[in-house]
Amino acid sequence: MTLPDSMPALVLRHDGRSGAIGGLAIADFAQWLAFERIAVPHAGAGQVLISVACSPVNPSDLHYIKGEYGQPRRRGTPAGFEGTGTVVAAGDADAQALLGRRVSFLASASGSWAQFALTDASACVVLDDAVRDDDAAALLVNPLTALAMMARVQEAGARAIVLTAAASQLGRMLIALANERAIAAIAVVRRAGEEVALQALGAKAVLVSTAADFAARFDAVVRTEKPRILLDAVGDQTAADLFQAMPAHTRWVSYGMLAESGPRLAHMGQFVFSGKSIEGFWLSRWLNDAPAPVRAAAESEAQCRFATGTWRTRVAARVRLADALRDLPAALKLGGKVMLVPGEN
Amino acid sequence: MTLPDSMPALVLRHDGRSGAIGGLAIADFAQWLAFERIAVPHAGAGQVLISVACSPVNPSDLHYIKGEYGQPRRRGTPAGFEGTGTVVAAGDADAQALLGRRVSFLASASGSWAQFALTDASACVVLDDAVRDDDAAALLVNPLTALAMMARVQEAGARAIVLTAAASQLGRMLIALANERAIAAIAVVRRAGEEVALQALGAKAVLVSTAADFAARFDAVVRTEKPRILLDAVGDQTAADLFQAMPAHTRWVSYGMLAESGPRLAHMGQFVFSGKSIEGFWLSRWLNDAPAPVRAAAESEAQCRFATGTWRTRVAARVRLADALRDLPAALKLGGKVMLVPGEN
Repeated sequence: MTLPDSMPALVLRHDGRSGAIGGLAIADFAQWLAFERIAVPHAGAGQVLISVACSPVNPSDLHYIKGEYGQPRRRGTPAGFEGTGTVVAAGDADAQALLGRRVSFLASASGSWAQFALTDASACVVLDDAVRDDDAAALLVNPLTALAMMARVQEAGARAIVLTAAASQLGRMLIALANERAIAAIAVVRRAGEEVALQALGAKAVLVSTAADFAARFDAVVRTEKPRILLDAVGDQTAADLFQAMPAHTRWVSYGMLAESGPRLAHMGQFVFSGKSIEGFWLSRWLNDAPAPVRAAAESEAQCRFATGTWRTRVAARVRLADALRDLPAALKLGGKVMLVPGEN
Repeated sequence: MTLPDSMPALVLRHDGRSGAIGGLAIADFAQWLAFERIAVPHAGAGQVLISVACSPVNPSDLHYIKGEYGQPRRRGTPAGFEGTGTVVAAGDADAQALLGRRVSFLASASGSWAQFALTDASACVVLDDAVRDDDAAALLVNPLTALAMMARVQEAGARAIVLTAAASQLGRMLIALANERAIAAIAVVRRAGEEVALQALGAKAVLVSTAADFAARFDAVVRTEKPRILLDAVGDQTAADLFQAMPAHTRWVSYGMLAESGPRLAHMGQFVFSGKSIEGFWLSRWLNDAPAPVRAAAESEAQCRFATGTWRTRVAARVRLADALRDLPAALKLGGKVMLVPGEN
């Protein structure tokens, strides 16, 4: 394959971190991204170049482009943390084993919201034919987060958990995993409408946090199930209130920041007397820390779940890179994963 | 010794917990306590009766009488968690070994703010003659907390810590312990005036949180010392701001609630990206969980430190039980430990 010299990409307009905290809402993507033609990157030692088939828009991407994520931005480089595509160039003999293979990847060197992405060969997962492109595009960020957090739940010996933003892709994965492991998943959602679907996935209870009887229903299920882990993607006052209402020794595991500002802690006595704690989960740290066999097993399990249909990525919209600045705000409101596709040029 | 049938005591006016959160300020002690003559309790199996010499007023006592502590109140029973005195009765043969001995004690069965207190023989520490009554009265709650938390600091391998309310009795103990262990103690106090004294105890830096340049000075010392443990007695917004300004992987160990309301967490990204965490320390849990030899070693170390003068309880006022309702509000403002003494009847 002859590679072009340039490619379309959604590139970052700013460097570093913004220092701000603003949640996920983005009214004007042109404030953060530009659609440009940039040079196709070259694969160095241990790297591969991937012709991108499609790439999801994850919450972490939105935090990142706004400069509110754990790693700094690099202006002029493509955004996009993961995707799927075909390896079209390799930087050394070892990486050449991947040439021509269809892979899922985490973009470590040049982002996935472009026609071509550059990453380490070790950041690629060779795909089974049974895995659909939509699932392959989002095979790593959410699935590895779900599997790693569920491992933490199991290490803690928890028999019940509470999860917020439970109707999200990640929330659905967690519910299915908990159900298989006989862990009661208490699903908290912000809007009514998904109760039946989440119960079908195996949620023990589905509670709508905006309902008038929410606090009473939550207290009742807490008394019955005694959940001691809160897997929280939101970080808002509701999460802090759930934590307060949960039993002694509850661990609040914060893995996302959908809220625009942090919560107030009602009472430090929760920590002193009740032995509660707050901690975080970040996939980037897990990827650095997890032993290679643990990571490989999680990647393999994720692929198997998508191949067999246990998990399924619900795609709400498919948006061309060229149309992204215009179309993303509306697409992201649809309730499902938005996929970016390079388009015809 | 012939024991009287009744005794003076400061007894609790309410049962259970209040459900409120109100900090330490108490304008009217008569709202929470009554000065009464009550029956002298009888020692059961494994218990001893102690003729109280004196007993401190600790922050935990104030939280407790207001119903804001980790264990529920029992109306009509004496308050007071610790004290010193002489064992005058024993409930069984084993406990009789303590008869006539001068002890420090944690009051497990009937509180120390009375002429006589009832407790388990195992909750008594037989005193060396070299330990002054003022030190013996406060030998356990603060000292064991300081030693147990410093053990946690050392287990974490920390080379520097931040402590709030650093001019308190407990703060001073922590500073001295950290200094001996070559751990840099960054002392945060709310009012100026104690800087020289705390530096003499070995504080690496003493910062006044109400000073105009506080944030800048704190940032500077954080850059130099990289403290990753915050030992916090306050639980206010200042503590949350210190936590926010401290490096990645900082642990906020909350052991007190001097503040009247909980703080707002600026950013859940502290937990997700920076790997920070919040946890609590409660002496009651430590006493339950610590292996007997660990507890005995800590009690022995505390006594040795007071006997040799490494630690010293600064007594601000001595108040008779009969005068406590009237005199405690003013005495507690003096800045030093207030001791309750049974008085002549």
